Parts: sequence; structure tokens; C-alpha cells
Amino acid sequence: MEKRISLNGTWKFREASDNEWNDGKVPGCVQLDLLAQNRISDPFYCMNELECHKLEEKEWIYRKEFDFDLSEEFDEIKLVFEGIDTIADIYLNGEFLGRAENMYISHEFDVTDIISEKDNVLEVYFHSSTKVMRTLENNSPIRLESSFETARPYIRKAQYAYGWDWGPRLAQVGLWKDVYISVVKDAVIENPFFYTEKLQEDAAFVRVNASVSSFTDQDLIAEVTVSYDGEVCGRKSVHVEYGGIDAYLKIDNPKLWYPNGIGPQPLYNINIKLSIGEDVIDELNFRSGIRVVRLIREKDSEGESFIFEINGIKVFAKGADWIPADNFLSRITKDDYYEFVRLAKDANMNMLRVWGGGIYEDEAFYDACDEMGIMVWQDFMYACAQYPDQFDWFQQMAAEEAEDVLLRLRNHPSIVLWCGNNENNTGFYSWWGNGDPKYLGNYIYKEILPQICAKYDPSRPYWVSSPYGGVDPNSESEGDRHQWDVWSGWADVKAYLADKSRFVSEFGFQSMPDWKTVLSYTKEDDRYILSPVMISHNKQIDGMERLIRYMVSELGFPKDLKSFVYLTQFNQAEAIKKGVEHWRARKFMTAGTLYWQFNDCWPVASWSCIDYYKRKKALYYYSGRFFASVLPYIVEEDGGITIYGISDLQQDAEAHVEVLCYSLDGEKLWERKFNTRLIANDVVKIAHYDEREIAEKYVPYVVPVDASHCTLPVERNWKLLNSVVYVRMTVDEKIYDNYYVFDKFRNLKLTKPNITCYVEGNDITLSTDVPAFGVFVDTENDVDLSDNCLNMIPGEKYTLKCSDNPGDVKIYDLSSLILKI
Amino acid sequence: MEKRISLNGTWKFREASDNEWNDGKVPGCVQLDLLAQNRISDPFYCMNELECHKLEEKEWIYRKEFDFDLSEEFDEIKLVFEGIDTIADIYLNGEFLGRAENMYISHEFDVTDIISEKDNVLEVYFHSSTKVMRTLENNSPIRLESSFETARPYIRKAQYAYGWDWGPRLAQVGLWKDVYISVVKDAVIENPFFYTEKLQEDAAFVRVNASVSSFTDQDLIAEVTVSYDGEVCGRKSVHVEYGGIDAYLKIDNPKLWYPNGIGPQPLYNINIKLSIGEDVIDELNFRSGIRVVRLIREKDSEGESFIFEINGIKVFAKGADWIPADNFLSRITKDDYYEFVRLAKDANMNMLRVWGGGIYEDEAFYDACDEMGIMVWQDFMYACAQYPDQFDWFQQMAAEEAEDVLLRLRNHPSIVLWCGNNENNTGFYSWWGNGDPKYLGNYIYKEILPQICAKYDPSRPYWVSSPYGGVDPNSESEGDRHQWDVWSGWADVKAYLADKSRFVSEFGFQSMPDWKTVLSYTKEDDRYILSPVMISHNKQIDGMERLIRYMVSELGFPKDLKSFVYLTQFNQAEAIKKGVEHWRARKFMTAGTLYWQFNDCWPVASWSCIDYYKRKKALYYYSGRFFASVLPYIVEEDGGITIYGISDLQQDAEAHVEVLCYSLDGEKLWERKFNTRLIANDVVKIAHYDEREIAEKYVPYVVPVDASHCTLPVERNWKLLNSVVYVRMTVDEKIYDNYYVFDKFRNLKLTKPNITCYVEGNDITLSTDVPAFGVFVDTENDVDLSDNCLNMIPGEKYTLKCSDNPGDVKIYDLSSLILKI
Repeated sequence: MEKRISLNGTWKFREASDNEWNDGKVPGCVQLDLLAQNRISDPFYCMNELECHKLEEKEWIYRKEFDFDLSEEFDEIKLVFEGIDTIADIYLNGEFLGRAENMYISHEFDVTDIISEKDNVLEVYFHSSTKVMRTLENNSPIRLESSFETARPYIRKAQYAYGWDWGPRLAQVGLWKDVYISVVKDAVIENPFFYTEKLQEDAAFVRVNASVSSFTDQDLIAEVTVSYDGEVCGRKSVHVEYGGIDAYLKIDNPKLWYPNGIGPQPLYNINIKLSIGEDVIDELNFRSGIRVVRLIREKDSEGESFIFEINGIKVFAKGADWIPADNFLSRITKDDYYEFVRLAKDANMNMLRVWGGGIYEDEAFYDACDEMGIMVWQDFMYACAQYPDQFDWFQQMAAEEAEDVLLRLRNHPSIVLWCGNNENNTGFYSWWGNGDPKYLGNYIYKEILPQICAKYDPSRPYWVSSPYGGVDPNSESEGDRHQWDVWSGWADVKAYLADKSRFVSEFGFQSMPDWKTVLSYTKEDDRYILSPVMISHNKQIDGMERLIRYMVSELGFPKDLKSFVYLTQFNQAEAIKKGVEHWRARKFMTAGTLYWQFNDCWPVASWSCIDYYKRKKALYYYSGRFFASVLPYIVEEDGGITIYGISDLQQDAEAHVEVLCYSLDGEKLWERKFNTRLIANDVVKIAHYDEREIAEKYVPYVVPVDASHCTLPVERNWKLLNSVVYVRMTVDEKIYDNYYVFDKFRNLKLTKPNITCYVEGNDITLSTDVPAFGVFVDTENDVDLSDNCLNMIPGEKYTLKCSDNPGDVKIYDLSSLILKI
Repeated sequence: MEKRISLNGTWKFREASDNEWNDGKVPGCVQLDLLAQNRISDPFYCMNELECHKLEEKEWIYRKEFDFDLSEEFDEIKLVFEGIDTIADIYLNGEFLGRAENMYISHEFDVTDIISEKDNVLEVYFHSSTKVMRTLENNSPIRLESSFETARPYIRKAQYAYGWDWGPRLAQVGLWKDVYISVVKDAVIENPFFYTEKLQEDAAFVRVNASVSSFTDQDLIAEVTVSYDGEVCGRKSVHVEYGGIDAYLKIDNPKLWYPNGIGPQPLYNINIKLSIGEDVIDELNFRSGIRVVRLIREKDSEGESFIFEINGIKVFAKGADWIPADNFLSRITKDDYYEFVRLAKDANMNMLRVWGGGIYEDEAFYDACDEMGIMVWQDFMYACAQYPDQFDWFQQMAAEEAEDVLLRLRNHPSIVLWCGNNENNTGFYSWWGNGDPKYLGNYIYKEILPQICAKYDPSRPYWVSSPYGGVDPNSESEGDRHQWDVWSGWADVKAYLADKSRFVSEFGFQSMPDWKTVLSYTKEDDRYILSPVMISHNKQIDGMERLIRYMVSELGFPKDLKSFVYLTQFNQAEAIKKGVEHWRARKFMTAGTLYWQFNDCWPVASWSCIDYYKRKKALYYYSGRFFASVLPYIVEEDGGITIYGISDLQQDAEAHVEVLCYSLDGEKLWERKFNTRLIANDVVKIAHYDEREIAEKYVPYVVPVDASHCTLPVERNWKLLNSVVYVRMTVDEKIYDNYYVFDKFRNLKLTKPNITCYVEGNDITLSTDVPAFGVFVDTENDVDLSDNCLNMIPGEKYTLKCSDNPGDVKIYDLSSLILKI
């Protein structure tokens, strides 16, 4: 039996060289404690970040005084820190317990002989991580390549903390997770594991094991019970042998766990009771799901497939890359995590990749993913650097960390892949000229991690890196790929359309955060596009330049800062839409698209779809549409347009299709209505319209086009260029829609729409007289909207639901945002 | 003796399938003839280029009827075409003379037995080059890689004709050079060659040779006379043996030919008289210079040097890359060529590279270069493609062409290098994955050309390609290099400052052409930055995007189209200045900078310094300053600024230096005056000012900076950022000046200057109250200005000379051009 006594709450802290103690909070960090006392300014505001840079060399002491009831019987007393960030010496009652050096793992110390009834003094002395890592770097016999801070690979601290191209340099210091005292008596069940070994028709073969830490010589029996919704589905008693238990169970008619959109997410309760004779001496409950995951990697015409298969069903992965949701991690609540994952689910995502430059996430994150069917691609925390694994101490740290992580997370059915690192193997190959080295981190990814994964979790595939597969780890024909030619490489968005990646685990396009968020971090004076504060809140070098490069390429110049904000969001949404639609149409030659990135860690211009304050960008609203189970996809080909029906539904379906064509100035040109059939989990061609069918009349119009390294004028049909085609597909009473225009918006002659807007309670209803694009509803109050950034069909009514009274409402659309100079 | 009867002038022409003949002009081309008759619109206006695309498949006949006086004695009559563009069959009086297939070479046909006294009919039947090259491409057993038009490598026609990233697709068809009848009697001197074999103190050993085409069996004596300014410096008589002559002469106290800025350009007259006994039967005069050229390629600490040495003097090459000055070549007059070369000379250039995608230039070009000291880096005409040299016919064509070119051009002292091609070897290595292939053009560059150059011109070095040298032909440590990371690769301009090229034969930055030029090719409706016409007059894919990307990076947004024009020019000038100054300061580790590109072939946004109409861009005015013999160079280093004195003077020189510091709002902060000594052909450090010396007071100011892959805020001194340092160096009564600001202009707080402007006759005099940057004088009349795009010191007077009455004058400066949104 274990009893936990929390030491969370108010502690004292001071800078090591100071004398004055102040109140600090655990879990928490120095920066939040200083902020609470107004000793630093909000680092997210303007360029206040700089104040925190100046703290980096300092050392800090956290101190807790407490009494402890020693009257009950016990066999052992442990002091447990679930997370210490990062280099810290721990003392209890003046006695040195040990040093923490890895923020990712928990630390426990046996304090049985040190703890007293009264006046215990617990002190944690935080060294400067910056000084420590710099010393390690300076003393290292080799130089390690690394993006951003060069010394960061030497310490096991969230790598994004030292600045990333979307994050400030804000390296939290402190006890960022729970601290408690664990009192153990007799025996305790530890590290339980439930997983599905095999699925058969109408039965699942599952396995439950755990270790038992025991202070008794008596025979221990463990009873394992698997139940669903209160009903027992399987039960087995086993003896504790060799310090553990191992039970096989057959679950009849199991309720299988499926990703969002494919099926439900039933979760089973697993109970383990440990007994000596009749006496239950420990009991443990946890949750898991029944499902098997396989990564289908088979040779084919384009190379080798890379398809996630869940319970025998191929699943096209739709989602985004997840980064830590704050620079100060203890601020993120369980509710936050549930809200984030809910947002992913509502946007029809089924996968998030926990990126290797952040953290192994909080339980709440994985719990939410388990409950909502969000598959997790879990990186190990190594990113964009070479790591010093030629040293034994670093190898040991890596092994210890992997073990800690696996034992903590392996019961989550949502996790479908362990992945060695982020971009380090493509770094070896393409950035640093190392080929496929023995060390530099590669020993961890290719030796240590696969061994530990095989040992502690035989239930999931392990993948060396993201990206990986092929001679070039960022190959288009094998494995997963990060497509950064667009954006980072400055290539035109249309490069997506030529990309034949097998699984796009990263690709992205920046936008500004929500207008209210922009207001939150700027002073009046900072509110122009190229102000220092605006540039500082776009962490990518030449990030603002790229925002503008792609804006003028697709849309034109912005009228003002607010127009800039909306136009960047529209542009981002359209760009990612283009990529996702193309790759979904290749299903399963491409078997997944995770766009970079889902969320932000501070208010910033970035690749995210929701900003730091969870305000939704245009990309978020678009995601719900382009990730929907059914996607009508319009593509220009064979002298006209083809409409494809992409279906992630698990059964064939009847679809009613409406195709509408308008001129941009509002004339309805034609319409077609018909029924068709979508094939389960597949793509079908459902219609083709020749150019002359779309635009009957031919009016010659000369435009410059890309003709292999130079622009040349060609003649096109003005009537076609002046058209928009809408498609609306109804399946099971759900409507899925899309639209297509025949040139970049900057080249189209948009008519200024007359948009009517009625606010009734919390509902906003819009309609337009001519085709309107990028229609943004801008509310006075900070409310959540059910939809936004609309591309509106003339005469149709669009109703947006607000989470509260929106206050005054303003409407913008492309024609009102673009400046023609 | 040879007598030439010109057939230039008015011919008849028609489309092959038409019946009606129209007047055409020789030299000329179909397009100009059609234009003269208003049968096509001006292809340089708007997107009229398209009309010419539609002509490409057509075939044309040019026809000349003429009488011919056969009364005089002759031995042979030849019909000579100096240039036929491109695939044409030639008929005289119905008899087929032959087919022309190479626009670069002259063609001659023996018509002794065909020509009549009366009613000769000469017909040239032009096939469609487009059809011919497409057929060759389609029938080829291999596919050739090529930028732009894929079939172009198959025909020997100026490769830029099919569209380049600065040129339209306008493939001229016609007799683009002189046509004449050559009547030969007795014997004629051909292909004379004068060159310097060796220089000694006070003497030059020169060699004169020629071939003699003879119809007599009698003994022929040739008298070779070398004279300067009417005075004979050497004379020798030799027998004609084996069909040629070969004379060695010693010229005492020779006047050596030097590049512009290094020394004078004396040209010697060479006279060859051919006699039988006392009778002079032929005589030939030509001009050349005495000079030796060596390419110094020696191993050193950074790799291998690449230095042009003229008459024992190391010369830092300063100049630009030359492209054909028109898409319709016969329009370019001798005066045009002299004006272009004069412009180069006046901008303190000493080298032009005749780029391999254009043409071997007109005699007038090389004559002007000889006279004005402009060294010519002469490419052979192969560019950005693989060529089909696995075919014997192509090898023969290449050999024949090289021979023709060498015989024609080798007497020009200005030509200092033969170079095999443009970018094809870097193409093999970096673009197409061929390594160092046997064929694909490489057989020409590595076998045919060096052999022919060695045979016909032992006086100059041959270089395989531009760029070439090192394993990677675009290596930084050896040979010449094309630096396109900036602009094409989208890298920030500061990348120049890290570049250690040994010789930069290409690097560049686009700008818009002159405002009057923009007006010339647009209708009112086209006058916005992203209009189709504006995009079509920037032939680079994403060229407009780059103009804007770099503008917002350095300056900000433009107020309107005209501001855009001026800002792009200022930005270009500043960017190229940055590169040139950095590389000149490395003298001779870097030994040359040729920026891409000197001129334009039509009115277009491009990398040129003067536009199609010879209107000067800001870069042109800047070139005169940054290419001057003396350059005071200011660089931020070691916690302050250092001023270097870069000298291309051939002797040490006393310099008077003034350093002035102003605040941007016009306060004179300090000034220093001192004398110093510049070292001949070298770089010296002449002053360093610590940051605290520049700006005494420290006012903290936070700015975002590039911190390895992400921006981070840092603190700087506002007083420093708000300063400008001017340096003015006087040497031999000439003033050389420069200036330095401490951040990108977009980050500076510019004060709007009050610029006074007096126009007196053709002089415009300006002065300003506060530091003014990018000051453009905009004249109503189309006049030439002696200077423009000024960075003005408060209180100083700047007088600009106009070539004529300027009319109304408007003044713009950065602060009035930039839009803050």
C-alpha cells in the first residue's frame, strides 16, 4: 500500500546570493513566481522577454518547511519529485539527497531515516542550466552542430526553452510538477501495463503485467480484473513471481478503440488487487483501450508505403504537430489539455505528433487523446541537433529517461508510435554532412531507444526519426517526410501539388495570431507590420518577409496591420488546404498529413492553427472542412476541372452533389445536381467539366504564366478566370463543401460584395450578393465562433454561433483587405 | 585583292505560304520588318510579346534581285553572309548553294559560275527554328536537361531568344548581319593575328601572322609594319610560305595596353602589304594592343587564387555581365555599343563578361572595349543546359564555330579570357547529378574548345566554364563563382559579408527599370505593382515577390508604384554595394566582382544597372562610387566601426580624410580630420572608432536580432542607432565618399528632410537640413543626369548636371517613399 502526502503549494524561494525569502508556488517556476510578485514584467508583452534572458545565469533556492506524521506504520518513506527543471541539488534537513539533471523524469529519494515529525526543511538548490550546459560544451572534446542555442544538447531540458523559430528564450527554472512524500507499507504495485497482443474475430487477447515492490516474504497474489462500464469482462489471479505479475486474458466481443472518425473510443478499467491471503494490501486502477497498431511498410510503385493500421483498418492520419502549450509549463491545466484535444477532435483531426523539441506531455493530454480518439505520434525529446552520446553518462541518461517515459505512458491506447527524435537524422544527412554516424545521437536512436522500447513496450512500432526512411531520411518515396520547400525554402505553394510524400509529418505556413492577441502584446506604437515588437513576435529569421512574400504572391498588399493579420490567416488556410487536399487525394500513396503546428507556447506569428490564447485562426476553421470524413476535391486537369470524392468513411455511401458556377460579379452561370456513390476509405472521380462547359463564351485574356524558369504571356479565357465553381456534397444529411477559382486571387477581379449581417442573440447570420472570399467576422467581445473565414455563395445564408454575446460585429473580406498599389 | 559589293539594304520578304512580297531590311529580321509595316504590335509594349510567339512556326523567304558588273578581272566571286539566323537554305538564280545552321558564324559560297550580269535572284528560305529544334529533340536518343526552352540546345542560335529570366521569348529570324559579294583577284590576306609573345623591360616581342588565299603561282612577299600614331615602330618582310605568313618583331619602348583605371589604352596599327615583285596585290590594316595577360592561380591559405594579371600588374576586376542589348540584334548600332562601353568606363568598370547565353558580340563592342580599357571575359555560347555533343555533327559545328570566333576576335587586346560556357559545369555537378560527364557538352568545353584556342590563340588563358574551379565548380575557395544565395536563393543580403569567393563572376539583385521606362511599356490600367503587365515585365518566376521580400526586409512597404520603382533601385544599389565593398576589401583573396547584369535586352525589371533605353538606375550611379580607384570602406567590427582605404591606384598616395557624424535628425555630433597614406593596389586600415566614441551617450533600446535560426531581443544603444557616419577621402583633388548607418533602414527613425532644389540652366543643385538617404531627382524631361540616388550630408551642396533642360523637377527620398502600415 502506498500513501501520498503532497508537498505542493506555497514554498519559499530566493536567489542564491540574496537573503530575502519570498513565496513561491509548487508546481511552478522562478519566472512565474517573480511575475506574481511583479519583480519581472510579463515576458510575453512587447520585448520583455529580454528581462528573463538576464536571469539565466542566476541560481535559486526553493525551500519547504513541513511537519510529518510518523505515527502510522510504514516500511519505507520516499520523497518524490515528478519533475525538476533542471540541474538541482536536493537537501532534506541539511542532508544531501542527490542531484537532478533531467527535467523529463521523476526523482525519488529514500528519506526513511532522514525525515522527522517536526520542522523538516526541504531545500532544492537550482544551478544555472545555462552555465552548466556552457561548461559542458566548453569542456567537450567535440563540437556539436545545433540550430538555435548551441549548448542545449548537453542538458536534458526542453530544447525549445532556449528559443525556437516560434518560441522565445524563456528557460523555466523550478519544480514544475508535483512533489510528494510516498509512504509504503508491505508492498506496492508499480508500472502496470495493459496491452492487446492479438485480435481475433470476437475476441481480444490482452496482457496485464506490473512490478511489485515488496517488504514482505509472504506469498502475494494479484487479481487482475478488466471491466468495461462497470461490467467485468475478464478476471485472472496470478502469483507474484520475480517481483512482478504477468496475466493473459481473453476478452470476448471486445469493444475496440478507434481513432476519431473511424470508430468509438471505449476505455476499459483495469484493476489489480494485491493480497496476502485474504488481506488486500494494495490496489491499483487504471484505464486503457483494446486496439492493435501496425505500420504498413510495403514496397510499391513509388517506393515504400507508410500507413498506420488500427485494428486492421488503414487510417489516413489527419492532424498537426503539437508543441508545449506554454513556456511556463505548470500554467497549463488539465482543462487546458482537454480543451486543446477537443479542438483537435472538432477539427476532424485524428493524430497529433508530440514533437521532440518539447516535453513528454502531461497525463491529462494523453487521457484526453485516449478519450477523443486522437492518435499520438510520440517523439523522444531530441531535436535539430547532434547529441553527445559518445559519453557513457549521456547514454545512461538517455536510457533512464526512455524507461521512465515508457513506464509512464505505455498504457495510453492513443499513442501509436515511438519516434527517436525530430530531424536529427535528416540533419546528419543533409545539414551537417555526417552520413549515418555511429554517435552524435544516432547511438541513442538506433541502439538504446529501440532496445528499451522492445523491452518495455512490444505493442507499438518504433521509428528512428521524423523524418526517416530511405537513403535520404527526408525521402519522398519512403517513410515520413517534412515538406519545407514551401515556406522555409521560399518555394511557391504550388510545390505541394508536385509532392509525392508517403506521409507528411511536417509542412507548414505561418500566419499572424488573432487580432485580439496582437493587441495583447503590443503598445499602440508597435502596431505596424514591421515594428520591432512585431518582428520579435515572429521568431523565424525572415518570417515577416515570408508572410509578405507569400501574401503578394497570392493576394496582394495589405491595407493595414489588421488587414495583414486577416490576409496572413486566409493565405495560410488556403496554402495548407492545397497541400492536404492534394495528399488526401493520393490516399494511401500518401497516408497522412500533419501540419506544423497545432498550438503556440506564447502569443506569436507562427505556423499554428490556434494561438496561445486558444483563439482560432482561419486555418483552424478550414481544418474542420479539409479534414472532414468526406471531402469534395476540385482540381484543374485535362482541360477542365475534375471533382473527386475523398472518403474516410468505413462504408460506401450515397452522396447528393450540387455543382454551382458563378461569375465573380455575381451572375449564376450554371448548376448541376446529381447523386453518386462514395467508396469506403477511398477516392473516386465523380465529375469532370471541360473548360468550355464551365465558361461557354470565350473572351481572350493574356496573363503571364510560369514557363520553366521564366514568365511568358499566354492567352486564357477571361470568362473562365472570372468564374468560381462551388461544390456541395450531402452524405447522411451532412453537408461537405468546397470551391475553386481559376487563378491566384491577386490576379482575379473581385467584386466588392455587399454582405448583410444580422446578429440575433449569440447568432450571426451573413449573406452576400456576389461571391465573397475570406469573409472574416470580427467581434467586439472575445467570443468563440463556430466558423469563420468563409467563402460565400451569393444568396446563401451562413449562421455562425458565438459562445457569448459578440458585441459589435465588423465584416471583412478579401476585397476590403487588399491594397492595390 | 578583295573587293566587296554590299547586298545590304531593301530586300523583299514574305511568309513562305503567302504570295505577297513586302519590303524587308538587311541586316534585319522578320519581326522588325513586320513591325515596320504595322503587321505586328511592338512586342515590348504590354504583353504583345505573345503575338511573336505565334509566328514561331512560320517559314519565311527573303529575296534580293540585283545586277552585277562582271567587266573587271577576277579569280573568284563569293557570296558572303556575316550572319544568318538560323536555319536557312540559300539559292542563287535557282541554284541551291547550301544550308545555314549556325547564327554565330559567317557563311560564304563560291558563286563564280552562277552569278550573272543581270537579274540575279538571291533567295534565302528560313525554316522554323522552333520546328527544327523540336524535331531534333524528339528524335534524340537522350533527353537533355535545360532551363527555359528544352529544345534550344539542339540549335546554334542565341539561347536567350527563347525566353530567359530577364528576356522575352522573341526569336529573331533573318539576315542579321551584312551580306556582300566578295570579288577576289590574285591573292588576299586573311585572318591576320597580332599578339604579344613576351614583354621585357623596354621591349615587346610581338608576332604577326595571317593566311594568304592565292590564285597565283608567283612568289609572294608580305611586308608587315607596326606603327603607333603614324610612327613606324617595327617593320619586317617575309615570304608567304605554306599559304601564310609569320613575322616576329621587337617593339622598343612599347606603349602597353592597360585596363581602365590602371593605365592608358594605346592601340597600334598593323599593316600587311602583299606584293609580287614591286606590285602590291593586297593590303590589310588592323589595330591591336601590346599587352600580356596571365591568370594567377596559386595555392594559398583559402584555396587557390584567381587573379587577372595584365603586364605583370594584378588587376582587381570590377564590372558586370553583358547580355545582348536587344532581342532584335540588328537594331543595335555602332554608336550604341560605344555608348554602352563608355557607360561602363565612366562607372569605373574595367571588365565586362560577354555571357554565354547571348552572342559573340559585334566588332564595335570589342573596338570600344579596346579603346576604353574594358577587359572582356568572353564566354562561348553555351548556357544553362546540357548539349548534344555525343553527336559528331554537333561536335563539328562547335569546332567550326570556335574557329570562326577566334579568327574574328583574337586581335582585340580587351579580350582577356576565353571561357567554355555559362553554368553548365555547375549544372552537371549541382543541378542535374551528372558529376563530370564525358559528353552533355563537356566534350566541347574540355576537349574541343581548349584545343582550338591553343591552336588559334596561344595568347590568352582558356577557362572551362563560369563558374569553374574546385570539385564543386561553384566553389568558394577556387576559381570563379556565381553567388546566387542572395536573390535567387532568397538569402538575406548580409550573406554577401560571409562570402569568400575568389572571383565573383556573377551575383545580382533586381530592380525596376527607370520610371519613364515603366511608363513606356504600360497602359494606365497596368500601373500597379502586381498587374499582369508588370509581372510579365519581370521574367523571373517570383521576381516581383523577391523585389518585395528584400524591400520589406531592408526598407519597408512602398507608397505606390513610383515609390516601388525608386525603392527597388535604392535597395539594389545598396545590396550590390555591400557585396562589392566586402569583396574589394578582401583584395586579392577575392580578385574580381562582376555583378549580374550590365544591360537589358528589352524594358524589364531585372538585375541590370542601366535599362533597355540606357536610362541609368541607382546601381549605375552607385557603381561609379563603389568601383572608384579609391574606396573608403566603413565596416562595423570590434565594437565599433573601422574605416579601410581600398586603393587600385598604382602608386602610394596621400589622402586627406574627413569623418563626420550626424544624428539622423540633423545634429552634427562630431567630426575628425586627418591625413593618411594609401598603399598602391592594396587595402589599409585607416581608423577605428569605438561605439562609445561614436555615440557618447547610452540610451538603451531593445531590438530583435538574428540569433541563429530565431530572432531574440537584445539591447542596443539608441544614440548609436540614431547616427550616421560619413567619410570623405580626398586624393589628388578627387573626392571619394561613403557613409554608414547602424541598422537596416526599415528599423531607423528617419526624419523627413527639407531638401532645397535649385535648377539653373541644366544644373540641379540640392541641399538638405538633416541626413537624407536615397534622394532621387525625377525630371520631367528625359535627360541624362550626372548623378542621382544621393545620400546627403546636411548643409552640403550637391550639383547634378543634366544633358539638357530637365523641365520640372521632383525630389524623393526614402522617408517620402516608404509606407508605414
